[in-house]
Formats: sequence, structure tokens, C-alpha cells
Amino acid sequence: MFITFEGGEGSGKTTLIKALIEWLKGCNLDVIATREPGGSDIAEKIRAIILDEQNTHMKARTEALLFAAARVQHLEETVIPALEQNKVVLCDRYIDSSLAYQGYARGLGFEAILKINTFALEHMPDLTVYINSDPEIGLSRIKSRDNNRLDLEKIEFHQKVREGYLNLAKMYPNRYLVIDGDRTMAAVIDDVKAHLKDVLLCQK
Amino acid sequence: MFITFEGGEGSGKTTLIKALIEWLKGCNLDVIATREPGGSDIAEKIRAIILDEQNTHMKARTEALLFAAARVQHLEETVIPALEQNKVVLCDRYIDSSLAYQGYARGLGFEAILKINTFALEHMPDLTVYINSDPEIGLSRIKSRDNNRLDLEKIEFHQKVREGYLNLAKMYPNRYLVIDGDRTMAAVIDDVKAHLKDVLLCQK
Repeated sequence: MFITFEGGEGSGKTTLIKALIEWLKGCNLDVIATREPGGSDIAEKIRAIILDEQNTHMKARTEALLFAAARVQHLEETVIPALEQNKVVLCDRYIDSSLAYQGYARGLGFEAILKINTFALEHMPDLTVYINSDPEIGLSRIKSRDNNRLDLEKIEFHQKVREGYLNLAKMYPNRYLVIDGDRTMAAVIDDVKAHLKDVLLCQK
Repeated sequence: MFITFEGGEGSGKTTLIKALIEWLKGCNLDVIATREPGGSDIAEKIRAIILDEQNTHMKARTEALLFAAARVQHLEETVIPALEQNKVVLCDRYIDSSLAYQGYARGLGFEAILKINTFALEHMPDLTVYINSDPEIGLSRIKSRDNNRLDLEKIEFHQKVREGYLNLAKMYPNRYLVIDGDRTMAAVIDDVKAHLKDVLLCQK
């Protein structure tokens, strides 16, 4: 089972995934959590180029291809081997991030992003949990964190990202689980558990 | 005018381009020489990851996407601005390298390489000079150079690369100029000049 988690900056994905890991381990499920871009040494080197604040002159198309490169390395090195061992893989961001950020918010279009991610399309998630939350709230939450190049975008950009995700949820209704993220994290976590407990056979 | 140069390792592309630059400058043409992967600071950082000998576990698909990423950055930052200023751009390697190396020799297929290079397809070269030479001779020439990860491949790999290029020359006969590279560099240079002098209006 390959589950991906999507959402804007500060939407609480990391906290949610941590809570789910504990919960699923309590059900004796073999589960791993990983993240994009990164999750393997080469992918982390690519991530460093993407997020480096010195690279503000990086072109949107370059960024999209670097995300696709990190994705396929992480997929082949980490995700596919885990799935082959029947593990539950919880992945923080996947192709939908490229679709929402580069395809929609940066205007490259869904079609171009799907083309350059042709390898990832062979391994689509069974389920994508999207935390739908107000970008202004999310951004205020991460103010205390060290910002990277992508966090520094204007609020309008993050609102477009949200629009992009909501379009994707309409395009892929069977794969998407949209969760109202403008609530306490405890409520968000309970909501996701309620949706996953039957699929993952974890009733705790 | 956008001219790309292709060939195996040690085929003499660099020497050829240097000679052409001098010749074209002698005709008062505004000419720049650049290379892939690299040719801009971000593209050079990507190049460093590709060529790092520590990254032997890099997947073929990752490598192909990193080349595509470096290509688009270099294209937008260096090649397109120069073409807009009516310069003659001589570029050491371009999309055909990805097609021959990753598409053909590594077996990813031409179709997948064309898809992930969807942005570069909008800017195809006016002419591609392919130096068709025996890989064993080329490899013996570069023995004295510091080898990088790609030079370390077996001879069979380099023979497949040559096959890949020869297939491309058949697929794109109008764009391809195939030069017999198993001769002295002086003969190769004269041959290319003879082919280019009318196109570039340089009769010297």
C-alpha cells in the first residue's frame, strides 16, 4: 500500500505522518515513512540544489525536472523495494506536488509535468491524502522554521497551489482523500485514521 | 544558428569546436561555444552530481532526468539569449546525447527520452555534427585525462552509443551531418569547415 500526503507549507503533513506511523505500528503493520524530494543520498543531493536560496535564478522547468529526477531515484531505491516487501509506505509529497506547484501554480501545465514524470506514472499511489488548509494559517505556523527558497514565495502563489490540488482532487476522485485542514491537528489525525482504518485493517 | 556537436568520448569534439570558433571569428561572426551538461552555474551543480564517481548507484532514469534538467537551465540561461542576439551557438552535446546514451545504450528508449525532454524539443538545433569514430580509439585518446563516472563504462557500452547515434542520423537526416572521425583531427576540421562554409557564409 502506497499512500502519499499532500498539502501546502505548514499544513501539518509531518505531524500527521508521525501520528499515523505510531498508530499503524500499534496494529503490527510493517510501515515506513519517507519524504520527497529526498529520501535517498542522491535524491538528498538533488534536494539541496532545489532548496538552495542562492539558486533564485533557477528556471521553473529546471526545478520541475529536478523534482522528477529526485522522485525516480527515491522511487527505485526506497519506495519500490519497500512495496515489494509488502510494507505500507507513507510518503510526504509525490507527483501531485509537482502537478500543483510547477504544473498549476508556476503555470507549466499538468500535461508537461505528466510527460516529464513518465517514469513515476508507472507507480501511482493507492491513496493520496490532501490536507486542504488556508495557506495564510499554514505560513504563519512555519514562520519560526528556517525558510527555504520555496517557502519564500508570495501568498498568491500558495493560494494557486491550493487551487491546483483542488483541481487534482476533482480529476482523480478515486485516489484522493481531501481532509479539512483548518482544524486542530488532533481532529485532522482522527479524521484520517477514521478513513484509513478499514483500508489498512487497523481498528485501534 | 544553433549547431550541436555529438560523438563518443575522445572523439575530438572539444578540439573541433575550438578550431571552428577561431575560423568563424576570422569571418567576423558573433559566435559562442558552450557545453552540456553545464554552461551555467546551476547546470554545473547538476553536472557535478551526474559525474560524481561516488554516485555509481544512480539509476539510469535519474541520470536522464538530471541531464534534461541541466539542459533546460542551460538552454534558457545561455543558448536562447545568444540565439536572440543572432549569435552562432556551438554547443558540445545536446538532446542527442541523451537519446544515444540513456535512450539507446542504457535501454530507456527514444520515446521516454523525448518525453522527459519535452521542453528542449521546442528548441531543436539547426544542425547536428556527429563525429563518427571507433570508440576504442577515442577511449585510448582520453586515457591520460581524469576519468569521470561515464568514461568508466565498458567498451560495449560505447559501441552501443555509436549505434544509437547512427540510428538518430537515419531518423533525422536533414539535421544530421555525419563526419568520419577515424582520421586526423586536421582532416575532420577541414571536412566540417567545408560543410559549414556556405551555411555560415564563412569562406576563409
